[in-house]
Parts: sequence; structure tokens; C-alpha cells
Amino acid sequence: MVEKPDVGELAPPNRTLMGPGPSDVHPRVLRAMSTPLVGHLDPSFIDIMNEVQELLRYTFRTDNQWTIPVSGTGSASMEAAVGNLVEPGDTMLVPTNGYFGDRMASMAERAGGEVVTVDAPWGEPLDPVDVETAFDEHSPDVFGFVHAETSTGVLQPSVPELTSIAHENDALVVADTVTSLGGVEFRADEWNVDVAYSGPQKCLSCPPGASPLTLNDDAMDKVLSRETQPRSWYLDLSLLEGYWGDERAYHHTAPITNVYALREALRLVAEEGIEERWARHRSVASALKTGVEAMGLEMNAPDAYWLPSLNTVRVPDGVDDGAVIEYLLDEYDLEIASGLGALAGDIWRIGCMGHSARAKNVSYLMTALGDALSEQGADVDVEAGLAATGDAL
Amino acid sequence: MVEKPDVGELAPPNRTLMGPGPSDVHPRVLRAMSTPLVGHLDPSFIDIMNEVQELLRYTFRTDNQWTIPVSGTGSASMEAAVGNLVEPGDTMLVPTNGYFGDRMASMAERAGGEVVTVDAPWGEPLDPVDVETAFDEHSPDVFGFVHAETSTGVLQPSVPELTSIAHENDALVVADTVTSLGGVEFRADEWNVDVAYSGPQKCLSCPPGASPLTLNDDAMDKVLSRETQPRSWYLDLSLLEGYWGDERAYHHTAPITNVYALREALRLVAEEGIEERWARHRSVASALKTGVEAMGLEMNAPDAYWLPSLNTVRVPDGVDDGAVIEYLLDEYDLEIASGLGALAGDIWRIGCMGHSARAKNVSYLMTALGDALSEQGADVDVEAGLAATGDAL
Repeated sequence: MVEKPDVGELAPPNRTLMGPGPSDVHPRVLRAMSTPLVGHLDPSFIDIMNEVQELLRYTFRTDNQWTIPVSGTGSASMEAAVGNLVEPGDTMLVPTNGYFGDRMASMAERAGGEVVTVDAPWGEPLDPVDVETAFDEHSPDVFGFVHAETSTGVLQPSVPELTSIAHENDALVVADTVTSLGGVEFRADEWNVDVAYSGPQKCLSCPPGASPLTLNDDAMDKVLSRETQPRSWYLDLSLLEGYWGDERAYHHTAPITNVYALREALRLVAEEGIEERWARHRSVASALKTGVEAMGLEMNAPDAYWLPSLNTVRVPDGVDDGAVIEYLLDEYDLEIASGLGALAGDIWRIGCMGHSARAKNVSYLMTALGDALSEQGADVDVEAGLAATGDAL
Repeated sequence: MVEKPDVGELAPPNRTLMGPGPSDVHPRVLRAMSTPLVGHLDPSFIDIMNEVQELLRYTFRTDNQWTIPVSGTGSASMEAAVGNLVEPGDTMLVPTNGYFGDRMASMAERAGGEVVTVDAPWGEPLDPVDVETAFDEHSPDVFGFVHAETSTGVLQPSVPELTSIAHENDALVVADTVTSLGGVEFRADEWNVDVAYSGPQKCLSCPPGASPLTLNDDAMDKVLSRETQPRSWYLDLSLLEGYWGDERAYHHTAPITNVYALREALRLVAEEGIEERWARHRSVASALKTGVEAMGLEMNAPDAYWLPSLNTVRVPDGVDDGAVIEYLLDEYDLEIASGLGALAGDIWRIGCMGHSARAKNVSYLMTALGDALSEQGADVDVEAGLAATGDAL
């Protein structure tokens, strides 16, 4: 028979989160999560939904009516975007310059689409010239790109140029803003991005579970005029339109508590001001970058494409990346991450996102990293690093 | 430009939740939700995942290795079950005796399957004879049924009989236990159910966002030997196997906080004991049923199929179901729900689930409902109802 498990009180360690997400959550957001629930069709929840939509629009810099939290973590909003936009017979153009382009490709294939690629090495952004060439060659219906690549720490510049190319070719554009939304400049409307999705646990510093998505009218027209149903019922935006649109009719039970939390996290964004928040990320992450460089370490991303929210630092010769990560976790309760895919073993990924993008966290990170590297016998100038960060903060 | 929204502090009303879910959440579970996060790949989170899996097995009454919380609300675990089990070319047999059979059908179609039905009127369970006939006629590969139909308040009896029929015909069985798991007797292994899914916000009284799913080896063998990929990347169980299986490799970011909450909610199940919990639901809901019947109201489900966790009460002639619901919400901060689909306007749905299945809630419900019906001029004996409930509690 199935025995009664003996499971004790929930007592996870008290981490400082400087990895690629989740980031540290603001106490006000944690408190929102412990708010008793109302029903997902309660009139008071309808008000809360409206408020979250308004706050999401502010954060995405968009007037899109169709701006909602998807009931799942970031990959759910990603699949909602790709799976609704791509119909069997459609072609989707995806990038190869990081881990998340592959994921887009897999989702587009499962949606019944054909996938074509625009290439750039891991660690570099897409070149508009290559995007233009790919359009000439493949005439894709949908073009997806990653604004902030979590696997390489590279920021995609010249977004308006990319969207122009796509629109001249009558394609719709999907932007992955998982690691940029709320932390790095992104302007959905001004940059003519048709669809953008994100995760809440990065620069918004909200526990994962309800994930930002926005679609403009062009995109929603395509979704609503599909010839075949999207292949997921749960993520079918034409059905979700009934719940998040004017009707407010039952589709599925929303993750009520996660919506509460997202509302509070977005309220913090609005209180700070979105441009001020971008500036804070840049300034705090810059102190981190200056420090690791002064220490003698090398950033993986070229300066021109440096992504403040996710700093990729090259592992110095002779140092075991995993041993450093373990040391930081064991001795400092501090999380950073290793490289993914093509960059596994070559880099560390150090997040500087949302409530983690603070002087306190960065000072602590520098101290801890310096200690870990010394422990490993790495040839680094810890004092110079700490001094440079201190000066910059 | 996009204006900064003016959104105040989160202050939802303090509801008593006696609808079809969410139910009232235990304070210990709310507190778990405000616990600071660790990363989804943190060694300490791996321990928490193991504990949640163990607790889920206890609650499902199963030894299935493959027992996990899916990263979404109940419909996500439903689509994970259907979408992974049904391949293009497969036939799935679904019931027509409630709202959720239709949802199963839609998911199976989107998965590329052919859908056939076994019929029973809304408000009645499936008859094993009809299931046998449907198998003879259609030879389905997968058979789905709803153990506790939230739209009709009907409990499906004779589950072992249904699973025998399916297995004699080499089909796999999927059980919807959204409104039964943790509140009404369900025994996955003893009853030979291959796959069962549920939602956390019903008899487990946990905020929605991470949803129970279990598959036995036969089911997982089918999933892992598919010829085509499942049509959702997010819900692909062969990929999730990497995260929840031995490897613990990154797939997507888990909803960490929802996993914390589910752990605490399941700990409460284990502390009480699963059989004791089933007995409590039956006893408390019985006091509710006795009371509404003594008041002169009629239950929609026949006594033999009465579902303690979801009580469907017929709306008396001349009474406006919506007005009563509104009155309860406005005057008592109390949520009950109207009928769905074929039963819209004909019934109220009164949940008695998890932390809401308490004498305190049922007494309050009876008082409030009596008042609302008197207000509406219904011909009911409120005093008799209150007395009967009081005696039974």
C-alpha cells in the first residue's frame, strides 16, 4: 500500500538569486502571494484582471488591447505566441544565435509550421542584412527573434530595423522579451513588434506562474482568422479571448494568486517608472561588469551587445565552473548559473534583474565571486574588482 | 504614449468560497506561498520536488514513478494527459454526460486523434454496458472518463468495472479527478487507472498553478514510444521526464511558489490521512445535503451518484438563480456558482471541498442561502433546513 510520507515543514535555504531567474522577489510581492483567494469569475477579480492588463501595457510600452498574463511559466507564453500565430502551412523564421531560438523552432514545428533559420554565432546578435537575405530566400510568414538571449547574455540591437524588414515582407514579428521586459529598454508599439512574450521571474521579480503576452491587432487578426484550431486548447487565444476580453466567460481557472503577485510586481514597476527602471538595471549591472573586468575576467558578450540583466562571464583557464557555482551556493547561499548548450562550461551567467539589481546584491556577489575564484587559485585581482564595483555603485 | 496606470493596493474582498473551486485555502498554505524562492534547479528544490511527488503518490493512492505537478492550472494537466497519450491516428472515447467530456474531446482532436463518444444524459454517470458497447463499436485506443463531474455534481461509480472493459480491449484509461482528488475516494492503482489528472484548487485547497498528474508504466511506455512529437512543447512529458525524472535537467522554469504551496496542501492531506479526509468530506457535505433537502430543495444528482465535493441543487420554480448568487456575494461575501452548459439556469453548484468542507462554512452557507431564498420569496422551510444541518454536523 502507499505509505504516508513523512515530510517536514517547508524550510528552503535563504538564497540570494543572481542566476538567470528567478530573481529575488520583493517582500511586497511575496505578501501579495499570501492574500486569500477570490474566485476566478468574481467581479472583484475582473477588476484585478483589468488592472494587471493596464500595468502590463505600461510595461510593454503598448496600447495593445490583447495584453494578458498566460496561465503558466515563460515557456507557456512563448508557446501561446508561437502556437497561435503559426498554422500548418506557415513558415517561421527563427534565429540560431542562442538556446531559445531552438525552442521557438521546436514549438513552430509542433504547431505544424515549417521552420527556416537566420544564422549568427552564439554570442552575437542577428545582423539585419542576414535577416533580409533570409526573407528573400524563404518568404516566412512569421519571424521570431530573441531580444535578450538568456543563454549568451547578448542584447539584440536595431529592433525597429528587423521589424521593418519583416513588415515589408508581410510577415508578423514575435519578440522573446523574457529577460528584458521591465529591465531593459523595450518598446512594443514604437518598435512595431507584433507579438511579445515574457516571463515574470526575471526583471519583473515575480514568482513564475503567470506570464506576460501582448499581441497587436494584426497578430490577433491572424489568430482569429485561422483555418485550423491551434493545437493546444489550454493556450488557444481565441478561447482565452472569451475570458480576458469583454465577455469574461469561463475558459479555465486562472492562477489567481500568481495574478495577484504579478499585479504587485507590476505596480512596483509603475511606481519606479519604466525608464528609471531600465536606467537602474544599466547602472547596477554596469558596476558588476566593471568589477569583473577589473578583476581580470572577460565578459562573453561584446560591449556593444551587453545585456545588463544577464551578464555572461568567461570562465578563466584552469578554473572549474561548477566548483565555483557550488562554492557560492554552499558558502554564500548565492545562486549564479553555468552556461547552456554551446556555451556550457565556458561561461557563468550572472543575473542582475528586478529586485536583484541592487547595490547590496552586486557587492555581495563580487565579494563571494572573488573568494570563490581565490579558493580555486584563479589568477584574478580581487581587490581591484571590489574597488571598481564600489566606485561604480 | 502609454500612461502610467494608477493602481492601488491589492485589497480583494474576503470571500467564503463554496463554489466549484477555488476553495478556501488553509492559512498554512497561504504562508507557504509567501516563502522566498530558491531557483528551480537548486539542490534544495530537487528535494522539495521529491517530497511533492511522494505526497502526490500518497494522495492518488499510487506507486507510479511518473507522478508530478504540471506547471499550469487543472486544464494544463488535463491537456498534458490527453495530448501526450493521443497520437494522430489514435481514437479516444470520451463521455457526453457533462461539460468536461467535451473539453477532453476538443483536446483529443487538437492532438490529432479521432473522437468517439459514449453517451449518458447530463446528470447521470456512464453505464458500463454502454462503455462496453462503445468499445465493441469503435475499438478506441484511449478511454477518458470524468470521476467527479463538476458541471453536474455526479460521481462516476464502478470505476474498476470501466477500467476492466478498457484493458480487455487494450485501451488506456484517463480519469479526470479534478473535483475528487483528496476529497472523494479514488484509488489509482487498486482501480487500475492508467492516467489521472487533477487541479489543486478543489479538494486540495491549494491556489491554482501546479496541477497533479500521474501515469503508470503502461501509459508512460505509450508516451515514450510515440512516432510523432506531442503537439505542445510546454506539456511534452518526454521532455518533462528530464526535469522530474532522474536527470533533473532544465526544461522550463517550474512555478516554484505553487510547488511550495502544493507541498504544504498535500502535507495537510497526509497529516489528516487520506481516508479520514474522504470521510470528512462525506460527513460535512452530507449535513449540507440534508439541510437543503429539509428546506424543501432538490438535489440534481440522484443519491446513488451524489458527489460530496460538489453539490448541485435545483433552482426552485420562480426563483432567479443569478439573483441568489449575487445576493450571497453582496450580503455574505459568499461564493456559490450557477450551472454550466445544459444545466445553466437550472442548478446552483455548491462546493464542499478541502478547507471549505468545514462545519463553519456549511452552517454559514445554510444561513445565507436560507436568507437569500426568503428574500426571493421562494417556498422553502428555512428553519427546518438549518435544524437538519445543525443536527447532522
